[in-house]
Amino acid sequence: VLKERELIRRIRKMAGAHQRQRRAWEGHPVVAGIGDDCAILEMTAGHEALVTTDFSLEGVHFRREWLPAREIGRRCLLRGLSDIAAMGGEPLAAFLSLALPRSVEQRWLDGFLVGLLKLAQRYGVALAGGDVAQSPGAVLADIVVVGQAPKGKALRRSGARVGDGIYVTGALGRSASELKAFRGRGRPRHVSLAEPRVEQGQKLRGVASACIDVSDGLSTDLRHICEESGVGAVVEAEAVPVAQGATLQDALHGGDDYELLFTSAKPVPEKAAGVTITLIGEIVRGRKLELVDVAGKRKPFEEKGWEHFRR
Amino acid sequence: VLKERELIRRIRKMAGAHQRQRRAWEGHPVVAGIGDDCAILEMTAGHEALVTTDFSLEGVHFRREWLPAREIGRRCLLRGLSDIAAMGGEPLAAFLSLALPRSVEQRWLDGFLVGLLKLAQRYGVALAGGDVAQSPGAVLADIVVVGQAPKGKALRRSGARVGDGIYVTGALGRSASELKAFRGRGRPRHVSLAEPRVEQGQKLRGVASACIDVSDGLSTDLRHICEESGVGAVVEAEAVPVAQGATLQDALHGGDDYELLFTSAKPVPEKAAGVTITLIGEIVRGRKLELVDVAGKRKPFEEKGWEHFRR
Repeated sequence: VLKERELIRRIRKMAGAHQRQRRAWEGHPVVAGIGDDCAILEMTAGHEALVTTDFSLEGVHFRREWLPAREIGRRCLLRGLSDIAAMGGEPLAAFLSLALPRSVEQRWLDGFLVGLLKLAQRYGVALAGGDVAQSPGAVLADIVVVGQAPKGKALRRSGARVGDGIYVTGALGRSASELKAFRGRGRPRHVSLAEPRVEQGQKLRGVASACIDVSDGLSTDLRHICEESGVGAVVEAEAVPVAQGATLQDALHGGDDYELLFTSAKPVPEKAAGVTITLIGEIVRGRKLELVDVAGKRKPFEEKGWEHFRR
Repeated sequence: VLKERELIRRIRKMAGAHQRQRRAWEGHPVVAGIGDDCAILEMTAGHEALVTTDFSLEGVHFRREWLPAREIGRRCLLRGLSDIAAMGGEPLAAFLSLALPRSVEQRWLDGFLVGLLKLAQRYGVALAGGDVAQSPGAVLADIVVVGQAPKGKALRRSGARVGDGIYVTGALGRSASELKAFRGRGRPRHVSLAEPRVEQGQKLRGVASACIDVSDGLSTDLRHICEESGVGAVVEAEAVPVAQGATLQDALHGGDDYELLFTSAKPVPEKAAGVTITLIGEIVRGRKLELVDVAGKRKPFEEKGWEHFRR
């Protein structure tokens, strides 16, 4: 049984080791981290702060029996980093609120933290604070990531205009196809490691008119852009890049791929930071989302809600 | 049953109404709020960002049968604002991650949000984002507050030095005495409304050498200051200001009072923004915490862990 104080000590010790490494690399935006009432962050002049929070709840967003602890910790932070990427931002610090039931052992916690902290380190992010509690039931995590972007340059959902092309980075559907494998066989042989498109998002500043990360599925996330921008969209099913092993349906509706979906009226490069960019459709007048299917027939692009690991 | 999307719409609508009022008052640090991948905040030049996160979990931090929904929402944000106050900071924006079980009705949610948003409005804070999910069990909330303080001026836990006086704002023990009433009679006749000491914390910049808010109880929170500062402390039991209806034990060990506990070698005013300040002891060499009891006898000032509503 892990007591709250032991939990804080453990997190602080593990985060501290990573943070010291980080300090050796570059400037340290985290002036004060774990161990005070608030963390203190130094922002770069001429920048705005970006803040995102994401729950990772056992039974809703993940299952302990399906994934190793490290991968659960990694995905917890991935969700937040991907939101910063979708704004074209630079992530600075993460905050973890974590409630564990009595049954969770220290080994599981250590795995969770190693997975989270390794990803944090790769993207130059310090674990600068959070909260701990005993959980009344499942493992409950809430991750906050704070980042920054040059003033007025952050990519919003609301900037799509009629005539803009619709683009996506990488390929879609991998998480949905993995989920089917989980459902079929229990643990899959290997788990793909989605990456937050942080570098790619930064390169899209000044290019993309609107941007979002594909966390809920293409059909849902494109709708978010259209709703916030007051426009419609037509997507060519044949143009959508489908991940290896996935189906077109996985790519159209599956979530948790963390690719960037964006719109632009400008010339768009073929790749951003090594990742392919594909034109999949066009922003149109009105509010409707339509899909041109493989037979060339236009039909409503209906949303099939992605409910993470629940379905 | 509240679906996730309905929940977001509801929160956005209620938060939006408050935010528009806020925009009329003063500058608006929230450039973008609910409805994008991240919120965008504009910080004041020459300031550092402050970030704090606090869980409010049903069965751990509160019980739905003991408090009206409004008061639960209010206390959820109070915890975060109090952390900003303890740093001498100015709160800017709040982020609410909220998971509700199917059994919770819209009326309860509305009450919770009204309580939270009214407090937010009073302290000039916008609800700028968060996350929602269906809870696998209890009501789960995690509140994030982002604030700012002039560069290098934030009050830390680590600045207490030997010879500094130990001070506390207001009076202690009210929450602990209320908790006893809850245990005895179910609902108490009235519930006191603790306030975050935001204005008081700002006035302590340049005066306090170390500061913390009393959320876990005097005996625990003073220990946090001593541990981070590498010092010991002696507290005079007779000097500790006891709230009306509370006992000395409530005041020494009870949490959730949200007063500020600070140290200083400088002249300290009798009041800060209308709230009395009391000298209760002195920072000493070593690492021990001692209490001079009402009989004048020195003994170890032992910690009696405050576990919110659990005990």
